Amino acid sequence: MKKLTILGSTGSIGTQSLEVVKRFQDEFSVVGLSARRNIELLARQAAAFNAKTICILESELKDDLYALLSNKKIEILTGRQGLLDLAGRDDIDLLVNGLVGAAGMQPTINAVTAGVNVALSNKESLVMAGAVIQDLMAQHDVELFPIDSEHSAIWQCLRGEKSSQIRRLILTGSGGPFRTLPLSAFSSITKARALQHPNWNMGAKITIDSATMMNKGLEVIEAHWLFGLPADRIDIVVHPQSVIHSMVEFADGSVKAQLGVPDMKIPIQYALAYPDHLPADWERIDFVKIGSLQFEEPDLKKFPCIRLAYDALQTGGTLPAVLNVANDLAVTAFLEDKIGFTGIPEIIESVIDRHETVMNPSLEDIDLAAEWAYKKVQKLIKG
Amino acid sequence: MKKLTILGSTGSIGTQSLEVVKRFQDEFSVVGLSARRNIELLARQAAAFNAKTICILESELKDDLYALLSNKKIEILTGRQGLLDLAGRDDIDLLVNGLVGAAGMQPTINAVTAGVNVALSNKESLVMAGAVIQDLMAQHDVELFPIDSEHSAIWQCLRGEKSSQIRRLILTGSGGPFRTLPLSAFSSITKARALQHPNWNMGAKITIDSATMMNKGLEVIEAHWLFGLPADRIDIVVHPQSVIHSMVEFADGSVKAQLGVPDMKIPIQYALAYPDHLPADWERIDFVKIGSLQFEEPDLKKFPCIRLAYDALQTGGTLPAVLNVANDLAVTAFLEDKIGFTGIPEIIESVIDRHETVMNPSLEDIDLAAEWAYKKVQKLIKG
Repeated sequence: MKKLTILGSTGSIGTQSLEVVKRFQDEFSVVGLSARRNIELLARQAAAFNAKTICILESELKDDLYALLSNKKIEILTGRQGLLDLAGRDDIDLLVNGLVGAAGMQPTINAVTAGVNVALSNKESLVMAGAVIQDLMAQHDVELFPIDSEHSAIWQCLRGEKSSQIRRLILTGSGGPFRTLPLSAFSSITKARALQHPNWNMGAKITIDSATMMNKGLEVIEAHWLFGLPADRIDIVVHPQSVIHSMVEFADGSVKAQLGVPDMKIPIQYALAYPDHLPADWERIDFVKIGSLQFEEPDLKKFPCIRLAYDALQTGGTLPAVLNVANDLAVTAFLEDKIGFTGIPEIIESVIDRHETVMNPSLEDIDLAAEWAYKKVQKLIKG
Repeated sequence: MKKLTILGSTGSIGTQSLEVVKRFQDEFSVVGLSARRNIELLARQAAAFNAKTICILESELKDDLYALLSNKKIEILTGRQGLLDLAGRDDIDLLVNGLVGAAGMQPTINAVTAGVNVALSNKESLVMAGAVIQDLMAQHDVELFPIDSEHSAIWQCLRGEKSSQIRRLILTGSGGPFRTLPLSAFSSITKARALQHPNWNMGAKITIDSATMMNKGLEVIEAHWLFGLPADRIDIVVHPQSVIHSMVEFADGSVKAQLGVPDMKIPIQYALAYPDHLPADWERIDFVKIGSLQFEEPDLKKFPCIRLAYDALQTGGTLPAVLNVANDLAVTAFLEDKIGFTGIPEIIESVIDRHETVMNPSLEDIDLAAEWAYKKVQKLIKG
């Protein structure tokens, strides 16, 4: 029985992780859960899965949450510090980090430092602090199990293989909802349209990242840290059907791909059950019904975020963290109607252009760079 | 340095195997070579690769071959017995069996019995004597490394995986040159048209097998023996581009595929270099240039050979051997203009319909069944 704590349990990855746990009650048990503000769902989850500890990020909701749980003996933590405490506990086998954005980084670090393996959906952890986390992983003998469908695909393709025999990684991406939209129409993209993703069921932040294709850029950086390849050996191919989740090309020209229906429960289950493919009856793939798989080059004019991410990875140091914070905030500003769609890459670019990169950064350097980026973006948004 | 003997060295698999050996002269050396009748090429290969022993199947060509090699110290074997002797020698690390048809079975058995691993292109070995060969493999602690692109793909996808967690195998096939031809035109298919394969560069027998799709049927039977799955968990999907070489679906719904340009040198190299992906500069895959991958259901009305092969596998015993011999001879008859294209499945069907299957056959039972099938087909062809 694997004991799990799930951070962000009321979000997209969190709820789907709990569906997997529910499907395999003999394999997994839930120790801890955390949510930002959805106390009703958090209380229901805590009761249904017999969680020992739960954390509510918005502390002022504690009493309401307590009321919902009145008859149960459940420890309630609150606020950022409660989240970090929960993430750093070593009474579990696996931490599922389903948090969104830069806020997910420190919980990953806390788990790794506690010697706990992490099923990682929060891509910002490695984007911001890849080198720091890698050092800690080696120090505490901890593994990361990617949940992202792309990285899960690569991880699966690399089973039994030597990483020295990889020629390149090929990350596939749907191209998002604006793949076929002419560049001239990009400035008038509305929030409502950007939130409609063609294939995947995901949270708002990641859906916008998919629309700008920053998602793919962040995945390139994450893949660099997970699989140890330089930027020029990680390629992006647009694949609108999202059936091939990513690929690995080996030194002899042989390519392995992992495929499936666009359902996050499959990579989540794999990360939870690794190294096993436990029998499950999620929707099955039907190649004849799919009929055709397409491939295109990503359009860097329409999607400058891709270029910005590659540049940040090439430069390294604190720059990917700055890119990530700028993206987080620009996406939030777009979702709050403060900037337009094309304002997202514009803000990111002007922030990373002004950043004085610190190489081989400590966690403190990364925090300082993130803080600097935060202020810079706020200033740019207010104009 | 891996020491190799290559049977069928002047054929399609043989010459491509030698291209791989030439590319990796520090990895592989050639001990033995065999050919049917192309003495000029065999002599050149023997000289170029410093073979110690060569075998010419058509014994009457021995003197001419000897003359071509006058200055070199090379042992020359002749005839079927020479071939079987060469196949059964234990002074090598790997036997590459590039022979075509039922004649390739006994050499595989001889190598396995000598304790030598076999890189197997000859699919008839397992189709005819799968159970016998499996027993011998266990007895002599020998492995088979598939060269066929489909089985190589599955083998690669299964690296590091547990075979108990496979849900099904998905063999892809181009559908051959007559995929889009209406059924009504099948009776007038000419030899010249049937010999034009859209994707792969192969010998005549296999090209016709691809046109009738018996190739895929034989591969289903071979996959059964290589990977231990029953017929109803081995599916065929038509995939005209031949880019996805085959797939494995696991119990959790995750699918792995192996892909590449349609170049046999990649699976040959993998079988020779296993477990390594040695760096090679064969043509590289370009997904954007490929653009699109299609999938269709195989048409069992146009390609009854598929159904015949599944039926033979379901029944088991000596029936797959009979199917295979009948197919070998029917294809030869077609290539000799003795029967039409639709005559191939007709002959096979009437032979397997009349066969009294022996279950759990010994090698002798298989030989007897093959002999029976041989006579039956000859009678049918002569009318």
